Amino acid sequence: MELYEYKGLSPVRIETLCDGVFAIALTLLILDIKVPETDSHNSLLANLMALWPQLAAYVVSFLVISVYWVGHHYQFHFIKKTDRTMLWLNIFFLMSIAFVPFSTSLLAAYNSEIIAVFVYGANVIFTGLMLYWHWAYASKQKNLILQNIPADIKETIGQRILLGVIFYMVSTLMALFSTKISLVLFAALPFLYMRPSRNVDSHIKA
Amino acid sequence: MELYEYKGLSPVRIETLCDGVFAIALTLLILDIKVPETDSHNSLLANLMALWPQLAAYVVSFLVISVYWVGHHYQFHFIKKTDRTMLWLNIFFLMSIAFVPFSTSLLAAYNSEIIAVFVYGANVIFTGLMLYWHWAYASKQKNLILQNIPADIKETIGQRILLGVIFYMVSTLMALFSTKISLVLFAALPFLYMRPSRNVDSHIKA
Amino acid sequence: MELYEYKGLSPVRIETLCDGVFAIALTLLILDIKVPETDSHNSLLANLMALWPQLAAYVVSFLVISVYWVGHHYQFHFIKKTDRTMLWLNIFFLMSIAFVPFSTSLLAAYNSEIIAVFVYGANVIFTGLMLYWHWAYASKQKNLILQNIPADIKETIGQRILLGVIFYMVSTLMALFSTKISLVLFAALPFLYMRPSRNVDSHIKA
Amino acid sequence: MELYEYKGLSPVRIETLCDGVFAIALTLLILDIKVPETDSHNSLLANLMALWPQLAAYVVSFLVISVYWVGHHYQFHFIKKTDRTMLWLNIFFLMSIAFVPFSTSLLAAYNSEIIAVFVYGANVIFTGLMLYWHWAYASKQKNLILQNIPADIKETIGQRILLGVIFYMVSTLMALFSTKISLVLFAALPFLYMRPSRNVDSHIKA
Repeated sequence: MELYEYKGLSPVRIETLCDGVFAIALTLLILDIKVPETDSHNSLLANLMALWPQLAAYVVSFLVISVYWVGHHYQFHFIKKTDRTMLWLNIFFLMSIAFVPFSTSLLAAYNSEIIAVFVYGANVIFTGLMLYWHWAYASKQKNLILQNIPADIKETIGQRILLGVIFYMVSTLMALFSTKISLVLFAALPFLYMRPSRNVDSHIKA
Repeated sequence: MELYEYKGLSPVRIETLCDGVFAIALTLLILDIKVPETDSHNSLLANLMALWPQLAAYVVSFLVISVYWVGHHYQFHFIKKTDRTMLWLNIFFLMSIAFVPFSTSLLAAYNSEIIAVFVYGANVIFTGLMLYWHWAYASKQKNLILQNIPADIKETIGQRILLGVIFYMVSTLMALFSTKISLVLFAALPFLYMRPSRNVDSHIKA
Repeated sequence: MELYEYKGLSPVRIETLCDGVFAIALTLLILDIKVPETDSHNSLLANLMALWPQLAAYVVSFLVISVYWVGHHYQFHFIKKTDRTMLWLNIFFLMSIAFVPFSTSLLAAYNSEIIAVFVYGANVIFTGLMLYWHWAYASKQKNLILQNIPADIKETIGQRILLGVIFYMVSTLMALFSTKISLVLFAALPFLYMRPSRNVDSHIKA
Repeated sequence: MELYEYKGLSPVRIETLCDGVFAIALTLLILDIKVPETDSHNSLLANLMALWPQLAAYVVSFLVISVYWVGHHYQFHFIKKTDRTMLWLNIFFLMSIAFVPFSTSLLAAYNSEIIAVFVYGANVIFTGLMLYWHWAYASKQKNLILQNIPADIKETIGQRILLGVIFYMVSTLMALFSTKISLVLFAALPFLYMRPSRNVDSHIKA
């Protein structure tokens, strides 16, 4: 029998667990969109049009969860070993990801209620804070991450998460004035994150 | 700690996420087939026979999603690294795959309504276009794909997807004459795709 | 960029897809057991006891799907490359595995109806036949399987599947006399399969 | 074709299957929390507050399942090959994990009923016993685990599981006096398990 990999806990399984939870959370979102009942008063087209809040919530939450998946993926590009603390930080992060289908359904059903915006906002903010904590912990463990990661790369990864958290805090508080502003800002954020990070991406490619 | 794999983003995790979403989308299809309620008027056999549109939709959508999985699998045979753009192209592709259980339920419930055929058709056409865009992007990134892929292999992979998209466009438009024609054509396409590609498959085997 | 693995399609992704579908089919079985409603006539204990057909169906179907997973796992121990035909054989096998949660619910709801036993039996027999076909195909492709597999190992793997199929055919037909006999036999089969195969297991260990 | 890995069954697939079942069991927990119906008597906030038993059950069961995942992960750090017996021990373990969403729903709906506490307790105790049996078997197979694992490490891994099982037995029996005590103890256990094991963790790191 081999002794290779004996020292240090491989990150393969926590990545598999995370990818599983992400995949299911993403796919469960569709269960919130129900096929309309047969209805003699309205045409099928009219009934489908009435589903637009659920459809919009599907697209936005799919992209929001994906933003976190991409961020998690980039962190693990630099992480080569894991430990019990890091496993548990991931688990709390996943608990928040798996909650998104509920807060999405809530927001789709009550999109003009401040409390629904607050629940959704709290959910995505908590997710972001856990992801930040995960990186803050991992990036300080010399025996868990790749060596020679430039300090500015480490900082940028953390900053990108915090910027999103601040953006979500502002978006959520906007509900006090108008829930519509919050919804538009929630929908806009993923598109901001699709832009590559000037130094992280070029560092990985170079 | 090792420095191997430091340069370039490994495609392992996006493949795991995709396989997860595919597996769940495939398995959720069965949730649309409900066990019939006890019913004093009809026998269980009669009630099960009445489920045939759901059963047909299950088989067809299982095969349609699988066609896209096989195509995605073949692309990643040639892709050895990924980047942020490619991750997001995959995510939009997955958003469309995860939508198929909904459009399948809709089609099973309203198989004689043009609008249901159009929603289903739009869903599979969008999926195909995203898969095509994914290959069009990847195959031009010299540092992301295997070297020495012959030009005709690259072209064939793209053409096979576009042919399917055109086939689906025609099948969908047929609903204007008869939704039954559309359904038959939707059911036929996966079987056309089971045939090996003359040059792609022989190239991989050789 | 590396050229390694350029020739021949790696079986990693089809294994991941299969494990995903298996995991979901296994876990969806629990959705058929519903928490009893509050009920003033009966105690919670009595209501839970009334769930026994669902509980039995959960255990039996969990074990039946697992028998197929173990068999599939053993086949892939010997398979090192895959091709388009093998991918599609796997997909038809998965389509049948993903159907088990439905046929299980049906059997749990109508355990004294011959037709429900026949649907369940047909489902597991079709699954077994697909798994057999998969091995019959794979074991003849010299460039897809490990070399030097003794002929008797190849035969035993196929025979073990066919024996299960015959057992299921007999168990299903027993419903014509009594559905109870069928149910007992369905429940017994997984335990027969837990016994190691005399030559396959010792060959792998040795 | 290569002959590498020909001897001994790789544990990769059973780990993938387990991670899949864990990921789905974790994510299905959220399906028990339903978006409240529109209700003219109470505000949305009041309706959300009324969901607290479901929310508490979500958090506790997410952490309980995670405790078992972490334990399973640590065992496989030392396991390098598997066999048919170990596959089946894993399957019975998974059958119990996949049952947790049901026993959680039951406990959330009937948190003051002794029988609901007993079902939940029996579920987590059985899970723990299966995980213990798995390690008891694996740690005795010289050709399945890494060599040179110190005896005290082997013992500690087993003892940590048994301690949890005893803790759960006591917590469950407390329901005879007060179900509230049981619930508080169930909620407390995962936090005890987050503390690293003095010798296992330092052994892996060192």
